[in-house]
Amino acid sequence: MKARVTVMPKQSVLDPQGVAVRDAIHHLGLPAASAVRVGKYLEIELQGDASDRPSLEAKLHTLCRDLLSNPVIEDYRLEWSE
Amino acid sequence: MKARVTVMPKQSVLDPQGVAVRDAIHHLGLPAASAVRVGKYLEIELQGDASDRPSLEAKLHTLCRDLLSNPVIEDYRLEWSE
Repeated sequence: MKARVTVMPKQSVLDPQGVAVRDAIHHLGLPAASAVRVGKYLEIELQGDASDRPSLEAKLHTLCRDLLSNPVIEDYRLEWSE
Repeated sequence: MKARVTVMPKQSVLDPQGVAVRDAIHHLGLPAASAVRVGKYLEIELQGDASDRPSLEAKLHTLCRDLLSNPVIEDYRLEWSE
């Protein structure tokens, strides 16, 4: 079972890394890029079967808030696969 | 139109950041996490309509290889939305 966590800067927060990447993309010949935001992506392989998912999911939400994201400036999204 | 780029370390490459996150997750009470890999996630807002997509896509693949990922140690995935 695999959990996928995407952590992105909140829409209201300036993302200097995204601005730098957008400027570099313009410079390399793609002026159609109007905005870029850069975040983190984590794939977490979990042992257990489908019946464990609710308890794992609750723990993962806690971990996303406490360890993997900074809730002041970032939002996270938790998805499952397999 | 939005392109989403996910850049991950290749499976054959050691991901020390992922190992550190896995150990921290164990320490915080989720021993079911057997492996973690950490990558980057970019959302690129593009101006243009559906007819521009093939040319944009070709340019984006070049940018993914040259700017956004290191093909020696990383793989990227390009997806579209809207």
